[in-house]
Amino acid sequence: MPELRKDPVTGLWVIVGTERPCLADDLRVEPPPADDGPCPLCAGHEHESPPEVLAYRPGGDGAANGPGWRVRVVPNKFAALRVEGDLERRGHGLYDLMNGVGAHELVVESPRHDDDLARLSLAAVEDVLHAFQERMSDLRRDARFRAVVAFKGTPAAARSRVGHPHCELLATPTIPPDLQRELMHARSYFEYRERCLFCDILSQELDEGVRIVVDSEHTVALAPFASQAPFAVWLLPRRHLPGYEQIHLAERRDLARVLRTVLQRLRATLARTPIAFALHSAPFGAGDVSHFHWHLEIVPRTTAPDHTADGSGFPVNPLPPEDAAQMLRAADGKS
Amino acid sequence: MPELRKDPVTGLWVIVGTERPCLADDLRVEPPPADDGPCPLCAGHEHESPPEVLAYRPGGDGAANGPGWRVRVVPNKFAALRVEGDLERRGHGLYDLMNGVGAHELVVESPRHDDDLARLSLAAVEDVLHAFQERMSDLRRDARFRAVVAFKGTPAAARSRVGHPHCELLATPTIPPDLQRELMHARSYFEYRERCLFCDILSQELDEGVRIVVDSEHTVALAPFASQAPFAVWLLPRRHLPGYEQIHLAERRDLARVLRTVLQRLRATLARTPIAFALHSAPFGAGDVSHFHWHLEIVPRTTAPDHTADGSGFPVNPLPPEDAAQMLRAADGKS
Repeated sequence: MPELRKDPVTGLWVIVGTERPCLADDLRVEPPPADDGPCPLCAGHEHESPPEVLAYRPGGDGAANGPGWRVRVVPNKFAALRVEGDLERRGHGLYDLMNGVGAHELVVESPRHDDDLARLSLAAVEDVLHAFQERMSDLRRDARFRAVVAFKGTPAAARSRVGHPHCELLATPTIPPDLQRELMHARSYFEYRERCLFCDILSQELDEGVRIVVDSEHTVALAPFASQAPFAVWLLPRRHLPGYEQIHLAERRDLARVLRTVLQRLRATLARTPIAFALHSAPFGAGDVSHFHWHLEIVPRTTAPDHTADGSGFPVNPLPPEDAAQMLRAADGKS
Repeated sequence: MPELRKDPVTGLWVIVGTERPCLADDLRVEPPPADDGPCPLCAGHEHESPPEVLAYRPGGDGAANGPGWRVRVVPNKFAALRVEGDLERRGHGLYDLMNGVGAHELVVESPRHDDDLARLSLAAVEDVLHAFQERMSDLRRDARFRAVVAFKGTPAAARSRVGHPHCELLATPTIPPDLQRELMHARSYFEYRERCLFCDILSQELDEGVRIVVDSEHTVALAPFASQAPFAVWLLPRRHLPGYEQIHLAERRDLARVLRTVLQRLRATLARTPIAFALHSAPFGAGDVSHFHWHLEIVPRTTAPDHTADGSGFPVNPLPPEDAAQMLRAADGKS
């Protein structure tokens, strides 16, 4: 019998579990074939992208915009928003608009075209997470912006871009709707209970155990109670902290370990199915956000329709998160 | 230069227009190949689906669950929600849940497997819209439900179902999130202005003209100002009416004509690209909804990522709605 579960973080009711059993094999998606052409994000092609805004060169002495880097951040050549100019907020009859100002950067995860975040060294995964931290710290100093989201899209969504492994950063002058929804529910929970919603979720989940995927020193990976998609996993830090930018070195290192473990277990379970994620950190410059608790949301793009694809607007998830968590715990070491 | 536009109905800021020009040819999607196997929704196979809840037999005297129908409504054999049972709302620690109770029906648009809504006779399209009306009127009498959405998914989303042309009806005990968002913004606009948001949109759009696709006696088709996807079109009734169930015969006939015209122009512009739509009608049994104004939202599933596919959670639409409306007006008669 399907259940309707309410996600306390998004406020959404989700149809969880359907009459037909859901098998991991049926959920697998084969990503589009890799492109063969020359890739502007590969090592040796640094001059083909705009000048880098950040790079980690473990060797130490490589020159900027040359090879020798392990992780590199460049402005997106085909940015959704432009970094120059003023917002010029204005009305048009009953409508509201402003200029499309923002920052859109690519975090290149590896110099190698055929790499995969799940297969990188721990140090390289940590570099990616460090790049998120440094770029988010920098972008939040821009008074035009209200939020920065670090995310990994999917090959289908990134069709017009290169197949080279990368994440993206988008700094926007308004708060993205998913983050706004979470802020609103975390605030209303805090106003009623005077406790952090995410801290309470962690406490209940660790107590129950059935939805836990990885339980580490600073980070907990779990399948959310009202999971909107099969094998969706949230990475929550144990320490209450609104903004990701303020994490410590030990927390970042632990996060890298847990993220890599979860990605490896997802690969072991779902093969090459594309995996998207989004890092939700508190917005800035717009009121008190002390009730927020940063986290990373991982969503494999399986064959199961998400709620927009479905058409009714109602989220439907055929796989109960308890089953997903059990499969992911069992996948340990298979990758 | 891209613009950030706020949709007054959903409250979402959308990135509209990107640096690169957006061509209709690049947006086309070829639907998955049609299945060849025996189809339980074809005429002559009526016994393979659950007994019909509604059917229109223009000939007059065909027996129920036999052939001779033009449009037929049957319960979905693989329903997301079950129609039997009580909701049993309850808590589980800090979480909330209830039983997965609801109604999930299929509106079979034609007895023929290879038909397409855009190619049906006007009478058949009107039958589909009439079936929505009759089933929605019936389902809202069930005290367990709060909303009914009539929608057309896409072949990809309907993977596990048959390829036969059909729409769906989903009656749910909570209001789907897209509809909830619209209700909230329509209410706050009404509280401030003491006018209907949708009536004001119609008035401004008819005045400006640039986003109008079809301007008919009872119905206006337009590309919304903060359109979230290329070639998205809304069908708005001129008369303020919260619930679709109460439309008159003349309005339904006009709606059928406008819907078919828009679908034909989309086909002429985007070839066989799958087209989804959702009919948003006021929910019931939960407070005053007199500020709501029913409408039909059409979204072609082009190659352009929608906001969930993108990953950042921020809606991005490469094609300004003014350009889309112009192309759709020019597509008249080409189909």
